[in-house]
Amino acid sequence: MAKLLPLSLCFCFLLVSSSAFSFRQQSDEENVCQFQRLTAQTPDNRIDSEGGFIETWNPNSQEFQCAGAALSRCTLRRNALRRPYYSNAPQQIFVQQGSGYFGLIFPGCPGTIEERIQGSQSQREMEKESHQKVHRFKEGDLIAVPHGVAFWMYNDKDTDVVTICFMQTESRHNQLDNFPRKFNLAGKQEQEFLQYQHQQQSQQFSPRDHHEGEGGNIFSGFTPDFLAHAFQVEDRQIVQNLRGENERQEQGAIVTVRGGDLRILSPAEREQFDEDEQRGMDNGIEETLCTARVSKNLQGMTSGEFSFNPQAGILTNVNDLDLPILNWLGLSAEYGKLYRNAMIVPHYNLNANSIIHALKGRAHVQVVDCSGNRVFDEELEEGHVLVLPQNFAVATKSQSENFEYVAFKTNSRPSIGNLAGENSFMSNLPEEVVANSYELPREKAKQLKNNNPFKFLVPPQDQSESEMMIKTVA
Amino acid sequence: MAKLLPLSLCFCFLLVSSSAFSFRQQSDEENVCQFQRLTAQTPDNRIDSEGGFIETWNPNSQEFQCAGAALSRCTLRRNALRRPYYSNAPQQIFVQQGSGYFGLIFPGCPGTIEERIQGSQSQREMEKESHQKVHRFKEGDLIAVPHGVAFWMYNDKDTDVVTICFMQTESRHNQLDNFPRKFNLAGKQEQEFLQYQHQQQSQQFSPRDHHEGEGGNIFSGFTPDFLAHAFQVEDRQIVQNLRGENERQEQGAIVTVRGGDLRILSPAEREQFDEDEQRGMDNGIEETLCTARVSKNLQGMTSGEFSFNPQAGILTNVNDLDLPILNWLGLSAEYGKLYRNAMIVPHYNLNANSIIHALKGRAHVQVVDCSGNRVFDEELEEGHVLVLPQNFAVATKSQSENFEYVAFKTNSRPSIGNLAGENSFMSNLPEEVVANSYELPREKAKQLKNNNPFKFLVPPQDQSESEMMIKTVA
Amino acid sequence: MAKLLPLSLCFCFLLVSSSAFSFRQQSDEENVCQFQRLTAQTPDNRIDSEGGFIETWNPNSQEFQCAGAALSRCTLRRNALRRPYYSNAPQQIFVQQGSGYFGLIFPGCPGTIEERIQGSQSQREMEKESHQKVHRFKEGDLIAVPHGVAFWMYNDKDTDVVTICFMQTESRHNQLDNFPRKFNLAGKQEQEFLQYQHQQQSQQFSPRDHHEGEGGNIFSGFTPDFLAHAFQVEDRQIVQNLRGENERQEQGAIVTVRGGDLRILSPAEREQFDEDEQRGMDNGIEETLCTARVSKNLQGMTSGEFSFNPQAGILTNVNDLDLPILNWLGLSAEYGKLYRNAMIVPHYNLNANSIIHALKGRAHVQVVDCSGNRVFDEELEEGHVLVLPQNFAVATKSQSENFEYVAFKTNSRPSIGNLAGENSFMSNLPEEVVANSYELPREKAKQLKNNNPFKFLVPPQDQSESEMMIKTVA
Repeated sequence: MAKLLPLSLCFCFLLVSSSAFSFRQQSDEENVCQFQRLTAQTPDNRIDSEGGFIETWNPNSQEFQCAGAALSRCTLRRNALRRPYYSNAPQQIFVQQGSGYFGLIFPGCPGTIEERIQGSQSQREMEKESHQKVHRFKEGDLIAVPHGVAFWMYNDKDTDVVTICFMQTESRHNQLDNFPRKFNLAGKQEQEFLQYQHQQQSQQFSPRDHHEGEGGNIFSGFTPDFLAHAFQVEDRQIVQNLRGENERQEQGAIVTVRGGDLRILSPAEREQFDEDEQRGMDNGIEETLCTARVSKNLQGMTSGEFSFNPQAGILTNVNDLDLPILNWLGLSAEYGKLYRNAMIVPHYNLNANSIIHALKGRAHVQVVDCSGNRVFDEELEEGHVLVLPQNFAVATKSQSENFEYVAFKTNSRPSIGNLAGENSFMSNLPEEVVANSYELPREKAKQLKNNNPFKFLVPPQDQSESEMMIKTVA
Repeated sequence: MAKLLPLSLCFCFLLVSSSAFSFRQQSDEENVCQFQRLTAQTPDNRIDSEGGFIETWNPNSQEFQCAGAALSRCTLRRNALRRPYYSNAPQQIFVQQGSGYFGLIFPGCPGTIEERIQGSQSQREMEKESHQKVHRFKEGDLIAVPHGVAFWMYNDKDTDVVTICFMQTESRHNQLDNFPRKFNLAGKQEQEFLQYQHQQQSQQFSPRDHHEGEGGNIFSGFTPDFLAHAFQVEDRQIVQNLRGENERQEQGAIVTVRGGDLRILSPAEREQFDEDEQRGMDNGIEETLCTARVSKNLQGMTSGEFSFNPQAGILTNVNDLDLPILNWLGLSAEYGKLYRNAMIVPHYNLNANSIIHALKGRAHVQVVDCSGNRVFDEELEEGHVLVLPQNFAVATKSQSENFEYVAFKTNSRPSIGNLAGENSFMSNLPEEVVANSYELPREKAKQLKNNNPFKFLVPPQDQSESEMMIKTVA
Repeated sequence: MAKLLPLSLCFCFLLVSSSAFSFRQQSDEENVCQFQRLTAQTPDNRIDSEGGFIETWNPNSQEFQCAGAALSRCTLRRNALRRPYYSNAPQQIFVQQGSGYFGLIFPGCPGTIEERIQGSQSQREMEKESHQKVHRFKEGDLIAVPHGVAFWMYNDKDTDVVTICFMQTESRHNQLDNFPRKFNLAGKQEQEFLQYQHQQQSQQFSPRDHHEGEGGNIFSGFTPDFLAHAFQVEDRQIVQNLRGENERQEQGAIVTVRGGDLRILSPAEREQFDEDEQRGMDNGIEETLCTARVSKNLQGMTSGEFSFNPQAGILTNVNDLDLPILNWLGLSAEYGKLYRNAMIVPHYNLNANSIIHALKGRAHVQVVDCSGNRVFDEELEEGHVLVLPQNFAVATKSQSENFEYVAFKTNSRPSIGNLAGENSFMSNLPEEVVANSYELPREKAKQLKNNNPFKFLVPPQDQSESEMMIKTVA
């Protein structure tokens, strides 16, 4: 619709002013990445549910259109269950806060049979149940959800769970158009991005469409007789609930579990579970998609760390080496923590767009396009999102004690080109080329090439100046 | 920008003229898969030729635009030869009826020398001729034709040959725009989809274009001196016929072989040929593209069978495991036969669009989009085509003794997500998640999860109800 | 078609109103390859720099839009340095004339430490410097430059260096829109294609934009304090020059090296260097991207030769077998030399668009589209460029002593389908199919199939006729 609004406005404008024609070139798909300014984005909609709420960023903004991506944030209160859904595009879900359980249903993969002790203390009975693996998540985890794979999650703790969900619609895996779609598998609520489509189409809906298409989950769309046949059930309530007919208005995508606790696993099993999770998964052998690891922690000081400076901060990432399923999805993520006045040197993403979500604190960010224009020069605050297009140069300076962010990247093995510091573009250019490209005398070219001994993260200037001066003089 | 100028001007016109014209947002490429209704498609054009006819579905319909595909149906009468052509996109050709010979000309691959006994019984003479492999086809075969590879086929039997030709224009192999193009290599006829382009451009053609561009085969476009030089021939007739100049109006893409029989192979060779075809091809070794297997039968009860129920029907498919060349093309196909009142459970294609061509009988089909809206709820009849977008849920119930279809899929290893039955989404979800997602008591959640013991194909309800009830009670 | 309704109406309007507005149907992305005529393209802009100039072809022309490509030609005078830049799309640079040095800066790859004798004869001193590999180039070389990899080049000889730079914007590696972008890393000049964007946007720029965004290199866009911090330099001149602030107007993208010579390597090293370049590179082992070979000569009679006829000419190519890095880029190139009146037979590119740049002489070229229309029938002269879309048929006849061209192809393993001559479509078709497809008697079908014994290159007709006649008679 974003595309059509300007057109419509444009027509009006033409008629009213008889003008020399003003034209919004951004709406033209071919030029969707020609920015005059980048804007930090905040969610522009919130959908409340019984057990929490979902905030969405407008996927029709030029920034998200350029990146071919969509973003939402999901908050689950205690005992809340995000009911299952699947999407037409690969997703990465980052756990900003909290912990709990989640599950993926891979079509074609077998369930595993589990024996469980069920019921209350007094009435214990053994039960066998078959279902696909249940996983545990905690703060800092990155969860990879392939297109078409159903996902659900549950908060079993008191702290609210906050997740940021990145979806790449411009992916070879998405054979539909670039509109973000979540296919809910339970409930009566509309999928969270549908409003942006309604916005576009509001003038086209016929009354008949409105009448018939009240929305709901996938099963809502099938007739009761089809569902009764398909599930071989005769109970009317089952079919009605499947279709979301008995829903209370406020339930939505996130429901509160009645009775207080989702008894997915017994306490003893949970213990075992946590051990397995930590031990068994680290052998790195991924036999098939059915047994593939689907999550990894981004904040731990593990193999994913690619830059650390005790005076500046830390950067970690999860790519397809750490989490092989990302190779299939074509996605990866980066996490950064930057101390006050420390800097991430000017650099660019070689092969990816990067969607940066500020988690804590604030930082001064500058972004430069191919014309040398500064298209962003603002503070990025907690909760704000900056879409950084491929090859655009960016530099960041923390303005608070700790600036933290997560960046979703549209490549499973993203590559960064540093423009300054150790092993950067400048340090790898022959000195003569530096001198002549920047018209500098030899000695100054040497400074430009070699003065910054830091890789990626530069400590606050006050602290580092002394070191630097020593180095320069020596 | 260029794109918007005409639109804007157009809008002015509309406003000025107070036209009732409703702006069709579907035409916006970005939203090409936002359907309010899916429509079963029938061919809207037929081009008659001497030896048969070609029917085409409108590739500009929203359904085909969304799928990035084009479809045509070709009928060859006895002794008819579909003259060679190549396409800018990979094709799958399904043989709905009849049998005969076909050939592919892979550029760069050598011809094989064949010794043949030529002429009539009285004047037998040995002749050596070099050409690329000739293949035999029969009903139910799926033939894979790569982009740029010339294809011809011949009906040597009395039964009409009917083939359905699927072309995926939105393929990484097609570097042109998404318009379907067949490059004819003989004759004077226009390529079968050109009319849809003419439709688009009818008001733009200048008289000069009409005069010069009367259409024809590839060789029609070269000047006679170029062709004489290139083929090293001096005979004027050869060059004229190459250019399609001596054609009778009615000949078209399919000609009738004069003298009654295309003597490609001697009867003895044919026998040998058929044996080779069956035996030699099954070793599964595909050394190069030049010797790659290019066809496989979809209807046989072979390895391709993925679901069978004696009371419901059978489903088979051919993917890149069965026919490795499909991996390169990124395509595959599925064949289904469904008995009266039997059902294919609600399911979705994870990673492919599916173009379903009803071959026999009729079925009640329901399709649901991401908003839970039923976008299709009709009978699909013989000869009708339903484009099923990726991730949309579908369920099918046969309304006739046998409902048969072929579905072309835009992925060489298509994956299906069943929503009900054995090893489905529902059966793989933990019971507690089922209960809480659908707000069902434990016992009913169990029914929803486990009641249907069938995988994919469900027998008619009357028959199965007794079984089901027993199971439920037990 | 839905898309075209408004367009058509618009057309009426235009006609009715006698508007001077010229309708650019090409701008419709979906039909961007529906040509009524192909036009030979010449550069339509030239940007002069201190040390040379850059000419650009209009990337908004329908031909380049269809191919998803952009082209520029760069001329470096003696001692000229093309300052470093990177691009958002993979490039192939062909050296039409001259020789010199070039370098690529692969992000993440280490520099190699080099010891060099520096200074004048009297004041020799050993210096250690680390930088990435410097390469030598000469006439006929094809240089592969990946997206995001910085590139510079230097002319150390008296002859002007002329390079043709091909960039494929419609590449999976480019995640921005299809507009060609070069990110300059030094100087104050705008990137060479920006004017075409300005052209589009001229009515949108606000004064504020003009004021702030005067263009320049990537570093121009960062504030001085950011740069001082990032490079750990305090010298004001360094930061100013980095930002391109002290530039003389005329300097531009190509500067003249002061003092007359870029002392990248000592004379002794140069000797060694040249040997290494020739020897070490031929072992074919490419361990990582960091040590990958990035150039290969197209004009030498090496393995790349795929067709040679002493009476007609020679064709060579460089694909991913010769230069493995091309596999990653998805590009390759072909070089041809054709003697007077010799012919390249009608053929088509199976899997690539081909951008043909005439280097010397002139040739008569005919191109035919899928409708059999001759969409090009002109002389192609030195300096002209013809965009040949995938699957369109082409034939070329040299009109001068030597017609030379380079063709950039959008596939790393391009495949050609010959329509005439040895091992062509026609020679690989069964004789009976030839006879019946072209309605020719057996004997004439044989001629069409077998008369031309040459593969790809056909000698001038006078010379070859005798040979041919002998063959035909025999």
